[in-house]
Amino acid sequence: MADTAYKLVLLRHGESDWNRKGLFTGWVDVDLTETGETEAARGGQLLIDADVLPDVLHTSLQRRAIRTAQLALDSADRNWIPVRRSWRLNERHYGALQGKDKAATLAEFGEEQFMLWRRSYDTPPPPLADDDEYSQVNDAAYAGLPDEIRPRTECLKDVVERMLPYWYDAIVPDLQAGRTTLVAAHGNSLRALVKHLDGISDDAIAGLNIPTGIPLLYELDADLRPVTPGGRYLDPEAAAAAIEAVKNQGRK
Amino acid sequence: MADTAYKLVLLRHGESDWNRKGLFTGWVDVDLTETGETEAARGGQLLIDADVLPDVLHTSLQRRAIRTAQLALDSADRNWIPVRRSWRLNERHYGALQGKDKAATLAEFGEEQFMLWRRSYDTPPPPLADDDEYSQVNDAAYAGLPDEIRPRTECLKDVVERMLPYWYDAIVPDLQAGRTTLVAAHGNSLRALVKHLDGISDDAIAGLNIPTGIPLLYELDADLRPVTPGGRYLDPEAAAAAIEAVKNQGRK
Repeated sequence: MADTAYKLVLLRHGESDWNRKGLFTGWVDVDLTETGETEAARGGQLLIDADVLPDVLHTSLQRRAIRTAQLALDSADRNWIPVRRSWRLNERHYGALQGKDKAATLAEFGEEQFMLWRRSYDTPPPPLADDDEYSQVNDAAYAGLPDEIRPRTECLKDVVERMLPYWYDAIVPDLQAGRTTLVAAHGNSLRALVKHLDGISDDAIAGLNIPTGIPLLYELDADLRPVTPGGRYLDPEAAAAAIEAVKNQGRK
Repeated sequence: MADTAYKLVLLRHGESDWNRKGLFTGWVDVDLTETGETEAARGGQLLIDADVLPDVLHTSLQRRAIRTAQLALDSADRNWIPVRRSWRLNERHYGALQGKDKAATLAEFGEEQFMLWRRSYDTPPPPLADDDEYSQVNDAAYAGLPDEIRPRTECLKDVVERMLPYWYDAIVPDLQAGRTTLVAAHGNSLRALVKHLDGISDDAIAGLNIPTGIPLLYELDADLRPVTPGGRYLDPEAAAAAIEAVKNQGRK
């Protein structure tokens, strides 16, 4: 049995306003619902119960992930830990689908196209126009980012490619320093990371969903490979139930 | 007239639970009251109104300052900015007074001793015993700090001495990089910084109070000297009223 060298905790943000409304969100900076806030605080309690106490936090630049981490760490009495942030942990940019209703999109484009956009590895939605009300081109959070690297749409493959440099350059060094590392991010940036960690194929990743607000603990060996493939949710029953619910999004 | 090179914003945390109860707090990690939360959010609105948008945040390791910054930046739509934290921005360690009622302490020890502890520059209260319920010796937030540097009590002079290295090594480089820099901290760690910035004498600093929740903007010249001594509160009337109230703490 491999020895555990490092502890990594992944936390998908709690329910957001647009999760509830069934809209494609992507880089649109919506806030948590009250349910999402409660999920986040409970996530922190699960960390305490499992005695998995983060030494450092990594977040995206999006408020639903930032606030989830704040609320979880408030309730885990760890909001004083160092914080690092990067756009590389942001949700997938959903292109022209941002702001669109999921059920209406399914009805308009049909099951095949809908699932291609939602779950294919390498087919991005059409790009979002810079003058679209849901564009982030003028968002101050990304003002430091050269234009050519700012996404207008992304498939999961794009997310893997822009997330991995941050994994190697920022998260891995924290793990190697022996820090229990919390990554508070999004459905697709975390799927991208899990794909990498577990060596999931481009096809199989389509079937993997990550529930909101339930910490997912990966114990990694010295080569940064999971001791237990898939990691371990700190509330396995709730995770299993939530994964089913995510699969049915857009189907009412 | 000196040119403004740098923008520094100081923000004292909103009302805490023990501010309200009239207890000496120091390093005890109490939370904000609802009033304090409202103050913090309003502080963020004042930043927007003044078009002073922080590019980077520095906080203490204490939740009342951390949460004040979070709430202010949430309301200023800037919670994605980089965060740096240090115990060097913590409130003054109040030694054996931590957890004690201010009015009762005034009654027990008399005006002279009370004001000596509260406002003298170089007379710390008696040290807090490590087995006291209000000791931070076993607090995880300070586990990385060698024992010999952990305070058991501090006077303002001690705070100046432990805060200044962080000013020079962490805050000044952010200013010099052109970043509008928000420092969310405490009555005494901010008095220590203001003493340094404005060159206030050891005697005169006793008369300086900083109100909670109102951003204090310092525009600094290239030599990091205030363009306007004392800076400028973003709500001057509220600041003046609050400064009066602080002076009367412990007097009922």
